[in-house]
Amino acid sequence: MTEFKNKQWIYTKRPEKLVDDSHYTLNESTINTAQLRPGQAIIHSEFFSVDPYMRIQQSSKDTWEEPHPLNTIQGGAVVGKIIAINDIQSDLNEGDWVLSYTGWQEYAIADISSLRKLDPREVPVTTALGVLGMPARIAYFGLIEAGKPKQGETVVVSGASGAVGQVVAQIAKIKGCKVVGIAGSDEKTKYLRETLNLDAVINYKKHSSALAMKNVLSRVCPEGIDIYYDNVGGYITDAIFEVINLRARIIICGQISQYSGGLDDPELGPRFLHKMLYKRATIQGVLARDYNDRMDEMLKEMTPWVKDESLKYKETIVHGFENLPKALNMLFFGKNTGKLIVKR
Amino acid sequence: MTEFKNKQWIYTKRPEKLVDDSHYTLNESTINTAQLRPGQAIIHSEFFSVDPYMRIQQSSKDTWEEPHPLNTIQGGAVVGKIIAINDIQSDLNEGDWVLSYTGWQEYAIADISSLRKLDPREVPVTTALGVLGMPARIAYFGLIEAGKPKQGETVVVSGASGAVGQVVAQIAKIKGCKVVGIAGSDEKTKYLRETLNLDAVINYKKHSSALAMKNVLSRVCPEGIDIYYDNVGGYITDAIFEVINLRARIIICGQISQYSGGLDDPELGPRFLHKMLYKRATIQGVLARDYNDRMDEMLKEMTPWVKDESLKYKETIVHGFENLPKALNMLFFGKNTGKLIVKR
Repeated sequence: MTEFKNKQWIYTKRPEKLVDDSHYTLNESTINTAQLRPGQAIIHSEFFSVDPYMRIQQSSKDTWEEPHPLNTIQGGAVVGKIIAINDIQSDLNEGDWVLSYTGWQEYAIADISSLRKLDPREVPVTTALGVLGMPARIAYFGLIEAGKPKQGETVVVSGASGAVGQVVAQIAKIKGCKVVGIAGSDEKTKYLRETLNLDAVINYKKHSSALAMKNVLSRVCPEGIDIYYDNVGGYITDAIFEVINLRARIIICGQISQYSGGLDDPELGPRFLHKMLYKRATIQGVLARDYNDRMDEMLKEMTPWVKDESLKYKETIVHGFENLPKALNMLFFGKNTGKLIVKR
Repeated sequence: MTEFKNKQWIYTKRPEKLVDDSHYTLNESTINTAQLRPGQAIIHSEFFSVDPYMRIQQSSKDTWEEPHPLNTIQGGAVVGKIIAINDIQSDLNEGDWVLSYTGWQEYAIADISSLRKLDPREVPVTTALGVLGMPARIAYFGLIEAGKPKQGETVVVSGASGAVGQVVAQIAKIKGCKVVGIAGSDEKTKYLRETLNLDAVINYKKHSSALAMKNVLSRVCPEGIDIYYDNVGGYITDAIFEVINLRARIIICGQISQYSGGLDDPELGPRFLHKMLYKRATIQGVLARDYNDRMDEMLKEMTPWVKDESLKYKETIVHGFENLPKALNMLFFGKNTGKLIVKR
């Protein structure tokens, strides 16, 4: 029997506004190979996913599921290595990289059936959390199925340098659209313009009202907006309704501007539903889990794009298990470019 | 040559808030048979349509088209009789009832090609303005195509006793849905419950906040809301987002609560787009004119329903051409049940 000293981040307090360290407690314990039942493995976590949806699950209101239970390990996707396995028939072996959903703990016991094997010779294993993971899945299916992009259409993406946004923007380019990326710093817009080759970029911090945003959108989208892929909400989204074309498709993937309290106690904003009428536009909410069983379909199309770099990506890696709650908090200040990952 | 003394309501001033008499000027003139070119007829207007969309066209903002031009006759649908005709090959004759789009004038010259002949032996001619006219067209296609009602689903209709709402509610019943009608008086909800046989009714004036509305909706829709057909907007619609089911369809046909100023200078309301995400719901704006060329399809299905009274209707008839602007104003106070029509 081998024993490991384990650390776990326990979600211990519901945030009312922003989530930070004060809502978590670091727990130390042990884990050992004798605990393994048949069909199970011990994973040594290496990379932890940090996602905006974690804050939604901390809302006191009904969301898409029950709130994240208090006094349990913070859930989340993890990339790690199998260090012990109790299954002689499995294709998996000690030393293999896997994707698991074992949350914020250094070591975890998982059912082998819940693991996805990763091949580090094909693409970097961290891509399973970002550009070939959950964020990519909703970027892909949200844009293609709810957005129905057609060649030559204008697509605007908010949070365009985020984990989902960077993928949406590039798929839209691949589909022959004109793509405008909105992000929150000159460094990010430089990445969008120079590395991802978007047609136009907007640093929203230089256009800090709906009116200013409408003006800049009107200038960079003189032919109007056909698709808006929204990760942000708030006044950026208010402005979009002024510039949409007939039969525009608005995809709601995230509303991160509202996650520091607006979920439970909504912000006020201008009513806009009459504009949906003028333009016969559609708003559709999309969620990654609806496409869980279509992961292979997405990977089949997207993996070659990542390998040949027709789809590029950034990751922001925060080092240190102890920084997980701080990293989550960083999301709400836009401190990441691309997928935010914590390395143990 | 025969000459007629004519009266016309001229739209002379843009309303900032509610529209009323002060935005119109009554003009007297003459019209005579010598003015008729080949292919034209003179119509003696009998019934005038009064519609919420008229206020939208008075917005200073872009809507679905250019604003209604000032200093021209108020446009709108009319049912009248042909009293003179200059076309020997036409199927139309003097004395025929027709639907025209000649607006608020007692006599009008119209191209025969723009007229739809009405048969008063089949259904009352006023139905061409309501239950078998434009309001029915958007009720039918909005519910069927954007709403996609399935048997057993729960459909909530705001403005349920209005021209569009009364039709939506009954089509939903015919399609096997549970139907909840929201209206603004006990008299209206009595009509909805006793005459239209809806499953539940809500007088919104007895639930005058989003929270109160949410509570009553939760009570009458314990299985949640699958389809919301919105003619009203405002706090009623805010409450809906709290009670919708997974993959709910929200159809925006009208937002009459916003037409007394909110079009140009939007009211504030709670942001709700994150809820679209939770429920993967869809909002779609619909407009009657998108289905202009499918009128026959609608009439073929709906005319038998009207004839055999499986689809009932009310009309509110205001008497007197001089009352047209007053009648338009009445819409925004919910003074009509069913289609509001002015009889010359």
